[in-house]
Amino acid sequence: MRNITILGATGSIGTQALEIIRGDRGNFNLLAASANTNVTSIKNIIDEFAPKYITMMDKDSYNIVKDYCKAKNLSVEVLYGVEGLIEISTLSDVDLVLTSLVGMIGLRPTIEAIKAGIDIALANKETLVVGGEIVMDLAKKHKVKILPVDSEHGAIFQCLQGNQYKDIDKILLTASGGPFRGRPLNELQKVDVNDALSHPKWNMGKKISIDSATLINKGLEVIEAKWLFDIQPSNIEVLVHPQSIVHSMVQYKDGSVIAQLSNPDMKLPIQYALNYPIRKASVIKTLNLLEIRELTFEKPDLNTFKGLKLAYDAINEGGNLPTILNSANEVAVELFLNGKISFLDIANIIEQCMLKIEKIRNITLDEILYTEELVRRYIKDLIK
Amino acid sequence: MRNITILGATGSIGTQALEIIRGDRGNFNLLAASANTNVTSIKNIIDEFAPKYITMMDKDSYNIVKDYCKAKNLSVEVLYGVEGLIEISTLSDVDLVLTSLVGMIGLRPTIEAIKAGIDIALANKETLVVGGEIVMDLAKKHKVKILPVDSEHGAIFQCLQGNQYKDIDKILLTASGGPFRGRPLNELQKVDVNDALSHPKWNMGKKISIDSATLINKGLEVIEAKWLFDIQPSNIEVLVHPQSIVHSMVQYKDGSVIAQLSNPDMKLPIQYALNYPIRKASVIKTLNLLEIRELTFEKPDLNTFKGLKLAYDAINEGGNLPTILNSANEVAVELFLNGKISFLDIANIIEQCMLKIEKIRNITLDEILYTEELVRRYIKDLIK
Repeated sequence: MRNITILGATGSIGTQALEIIRGDRGNFNLLAASANTNVTSIKNIIDEFAPKYITMMDKDSYNIVKDYCKAKNLSVEVLYGVEGLIEISTLSDVDLVLTSLVGMIGLRPTIEAIKAGIDIALANKETLVVGGEIVMDLAKKHKVKILPVDSEHGAIFQCLQGNQYKDIDKILLTASGGPFRGRPLNELQKVDVNDALSHPKWNMGKKISIDSATLINKGLEVIEAKWLFDIQPSNIEVLVHPQSIVHSMVQYKDGSVIAQLSNPDMKLPIQYALNYPIRKASVIKTLNLLEIRELTFEKPDLNTFKGLKLAYDAINEGGNLPTILNSANEVAVELFLNGKISFLDIANIIEQCMLKIEKIRNITLDEILYTEELVRRYIKDLIK
Repeated sequence: MRNITILGATGSIGTQALEIIRGDRGNFNLLAASANTNVTSIKNIIDEFAPKYITMMDKDSYNIVKDYCKAKNLSVEVLYGVEGLIEISTLSDVDLVLTSLVGMIGLRPTIEAIKAGIDIALANKETLVVGGEIVMDLAKKHKVKILPVDSEHGAIFQCLQGNQYKDIDKILLTASGGPFRGRPLNELQKVDVNDALSHPKWNMGKKISIDSATLINKGLEVIEAKWLFDIQPSNIEVLVHPQSIVHSMVQYKDGSVIAQLSNPDMKLPIQYALNYPIRKASVIKTLNLLEIRELTFEKPDLNTFKGLKLAYDAINEGGNLPTILNSANEVAVELFLNGKISFLDIANIIEQCMLKIEKIRNITLDEILYTEELVRRYIKDLIK
């Protein structure tokens, strides 16, 4: 029986992880879960899975959940905020923390879990984007596994089984291309939130759907891959693959390429990470290549989707540049979702931030948080 | 330094294996080599690689090579026939036998090498087609590795690294479709030897080129895969993939599919088998999916290419049926290459043999050889 903590249990990844746990109750126990404000879902989780701990990020929601548990006389410890996230990530009896939070809020709980020697199933790519060096060094030191949950990194991880990192020549990171693939820049000036949220292949949360439309998601994944697989960004090539069947590939130095394929369904990489190295019975629709018939590959358009280029720039410069990129993106996506800026402004704002904000080399955790603050202030001034 | 014996050193696979050895002389030593009649190539091999043993299958060629070594005062032991093949496959200082012979002649030397505890790089699929059970049982008993050199089985072997055979759900065996892909049956009545030898993707020996045109090669590979990977034929699916980039795939029980891709070049699977589990620097052109742009998959036409269906029938029945199929094919291909029968007659003759020749269950090595004799006699009567 493995005790699991899920950070972000009511989001898209969290919900699908619960589905895996529901189907394999003999193997998994949900020890703790967190959410922001989704009280209804958390109540359902408490009733169904009887976790020992719940953390709410929102104060009102925290109070509601606390009262709920008291009224039902449940022995659930209800916690609050980042401290609560850290507490449920470092419990002595937790075997695996699934970090499926959105944004760089996942960084500190992840670091603390690693320090406590707990394996991480990582669905929170921002953690590695901003703190990759710190996190991977700590994981090495504490002999902790970082199991990728992103479909692309999960694919790469599978393609690396039985092989050695030193034999990697290149990572071929696939991208669906998002809802605006093939559209010229001028057509993207007027797209609205609904257009951008209409992903052709994946049904995901709002933030990542917008990141997919801008291709910044792929940029963040390039940075994530650099840290996870210890590979230079120049050896990570993005291939647009609209069918989203090949989830990524590893090209080895002997010229052999190993690819992982499946129907696009996050339940597979979640299941693989939760059960690694064991493969369990399928929970997704079986791939039928005779139905799909063709798999195509094309170059990403870095002119139209300059966010991807900015991500390569950020990781090549290093230091706090990836944090600037990521924080600026978090703020800009929020502004776009609230109708305050246009779609193309997302990348423009990131570019401005990367140009104007103070650069720091060899960053510490404090400097990451400081950089985030700088970015938030800069953008606030910029768009008021 | 690894001592290598190459059975069939002057053929397509043998020549490419020598290229690998030539490029990695610090790692490999050609201890012994065999050929049928190609005296010129064998003399070159002797001069370049200085093997200690040579076996010639043809008596005149044997005498010529023997005289050549005597005249040049070389300390090469020249041997003759199947006994010579067995001798160079069981030398106490050989580390790996590469069996790149054509046809079931490879069976006995392979068995004797296994009994001597020597690892096998297997490019001679007929060995497993006719004697799969015997060979694999012996390999298990003597803890000998059977490293597949066929591009498809090499691909499957790579896709299985870091995974467990028990987790395989299905093998997806790709096929280029050969030169006659998409052509209806009536158009194949008049094709000649040159048409059949014009493979669109692979440059191979004559026998295997004809086998690719009839799709019987794929049938033999289904049988080979059954034995190599301990999987039921009903779980081996053939997919026609005209680009010949995906060399095969393994579908696991969790729904994940692992594929191996590269430009079609036999040097890669040969190099992988010779160096396993180490990956050496590439000797082939790097794959560029942006150039290839699309990978397509379609169902094989079992009506037009009934040889593939016959192979499934043969392995499902078991016993000496695969030997009947294989021997009938060896004879029929020879007849076709000599202009004695038409292209479609190859499969017709195999079908006749499978219907008419005495069935034997639980076959021994002697019964395999006996069956081959029966088939040769039957076809001789049939077409005289």
